[in-house]
Amino acid sequence: MYYLGIDLGGTNIAIGLVNEEGEIVERGNAPTGRERSATLILKDMADLALEVMAKAGVGFDQITSVGVGSPGAPDVENGVIIYNNNLGFRNVPVRAELQKYLPLPVYVDNDANCAALAEGLLGAAGGVRHSVTITLGTGIGGGVIIDHKIYSGFNNAGSELGHMVIEASGKLCSCGRRGCWEAYASARGLVEMAREAAAQAPASLLYTMVDGDLSKITAKTPFDAAKQGDAVGAAVVDKYLDYLAVGVVNIINILQPEVIVIGGGVSKEGENLLVPLKEKVARECYGQEGIPTAELRLALLGNDAGIVGAALLGFPPEKRALVSLFGPGRK
Amino acid sequence: MYYLGIDLGGTNIAIGLVNEEGEIVERGNAPTGRERSATLILKDMADLALEVMAKAGVGFDQITSVGVGSPGAPDVENGVIIYNNNLGFRNVPVRAELQKYLPLPVYVDNDANCAALAEGLLGAAGGVRHSVTITLGTGIGGGVIIDHKIYSGFNNAGSELGHMVIEASGKLCSCGRRGCWEAYASARGLVEMAREAAAQAPASLLYTMVDGDLSKITAKTPFDAAKQGDAVGAAVVDKYLDYLAVGVVNIINILQPEVIVIGGGVSKEGENLLVPLKEKVARECYGQEGIPTAELRLALLGNDAGIVGAALLGFPPEKRALVSLFGPGRK
Repeated sequence: MYYLGIDLGGTNIAIGLVNEEGEIVERGNAPTGRERSATLILKDMADLALEVMAKAGVGFDQITSVGVGSPGAPDVENGVIIYNNNLGFRNVPVRAELQKYLPLPVYVDNDANCAALAEGLLGAAGGVRHSVTITLGTGIGGGVIIDHKIYSGFNNAGSELGHMVIEASGKLCSCGRRGCWEAYASARGLVEMAREAAAQAPASLLYTMVDGDLSKITAKTPFDAAKQGDAVGAAVVDKYLDYLAVGVVNIINILQPEVIVIGGGVSKEGENLLVPLKEKVARECYGQEGIPTAELRLALLGNDAGIVGAALLGFPPEKRALVSLFGPGRK
Repeated sequence: MYYLGIDLGGTNIAIGLVNEEGEIVERGNAPTGRERSATLILKDMADLALEVMAKAGVGFDQITSVGVGSPGAPDVENGVIIYNNNLGFRNVPVRAELQKYLPLPVYVDNDANCAALAEGLLGAAGGVRHSVTITLGTGIGGGVIIDHKIYSGFNNAGSELGHMVIEASGKLCSCGRRGCWEAYASARGLVEMAREAAAQAPASLLYTMVDGDLSKITAKTPFDAAKQGDAVGAAVVDKYLDYLAVGVVNIINILQPEVIVIGGGVSKEGENLLVPLKEKVARECYGQEGIPTAELRLALLGNDAGIVGAALLGFPPEKRALVSLFGPGRK
């Protein structure tokens, strides 16, 4: 049997036909056209599903379910996206609309949760029962997997890990609170820190690398400067990693997942990020004699996590434990 | 059938015989004598269990299980307390020792987790699937209930909610980290804040109430001063509640439990604590249109939570959902 996984993004709709091993065997892609109504967007998603099925020569009788990962707050039980600003969604009945065209069970969840499910079952945390995936992008996305399932609280609005305050009365966050982890440890937080440091140090490589045009500084710039021996760049990276570690240790102390997966743009720094982060986390951990602690790993599935995670929404519990033993994370 | 629940404290061992409704029908009590070996303490626990059974006229055939709530880090699977400083425990085989005297299944978990299980199933959060219980004592204890079960991570060391940093590079905490929630929002944190404020304001009621002897200030003092119209006391309480709210909102954003239960010494302030705390939390919450959020409630079970929660460890899953519909929290 197969599972359809749909990753609904602000720019693109990506779909995959996923087999029992969690592998994508056929793909489709279309622009979201987010200025359009939800009804039209969902019609396109269904068309794309039919196209992918035709390409793969797979009929409805060979498909267990359709899963949709969407930005926004989901009503998982009813297959509705309650609210998303970016797509202009308000109480969009994703399941009901898709079932007009696809006579299949339809599961709906938040996209960050889907990515966490994919990394948690098949990716960097494959084989593990409890994991947390953190996505270091413009903001900080998070997903919590407990017992091979997404955990997002009684209202499906949990795992807003980026909106954990780590600096009471600190920097203003986009959410309106002060001192959220996201304001410091996201790519945007890093860029802001780097720009401030460069502005203070025009002799630094961090400054000269962008010819003094601070708007050109990206999350990569301070890492690059640090690699070339720039003390200012290195200090920015070190401070950034301190903030990142504070939140990671909080997650460990609260949730004690077996694995924490780090994904998103900043995670492309790879070992340059992971090795010093691990050191800082080990130093900060509320450790107790003889008790093991969470392992930090880099995300494995990249952009496919969204599709695969959406498909996995339809995997029954016994298959989830099983598939997690064979994913790329275990190979 | 009955369940034995044992609350092992640093000073006392409290035991209860608990019925299917989660009510304590017989009790026993003995000093812990923590300077003694674990073997002797556990022997006393077994004797106490036999005594309580005799008093109630209940035989082994009428008891489903024995549950033990102990301070320290548990190995739930093997019924061992890995580590506790206060009792001097290192890898104490609680289950194996008790089973020398009691031919029954023995369950072992951390005492804060047991209290959270009791409040979560039968107490202030009775009838709810996901809840968090916070205990505001000398430190901050925490317990997380997900799907009517204790969740404490892959190593049973999770829900250290007090050791979530809310003020990076803030006050030093007893755990060695800086800025832990516990350093601000525990009874000790409150007392320290009150003493500092009183020292600066000798004309305040906060100061005169203790005749200038700051060592006499307890967690109750600033609340009492505030009630009598003292601006300095009120400011301390307000600042304390700000810190308390920061952590509560973090827990909501991460875990979205349906109910957060507030227990421990400071919670005796009752509505004086709860009403302003709710206001601050509502203001801080990362709310989204149309999404319900966690409710804050005061703990209901007091000291019995430890005994009842330990007994509940032996309740099978289907009974847990059921008992939670009939507990004192529902009456």
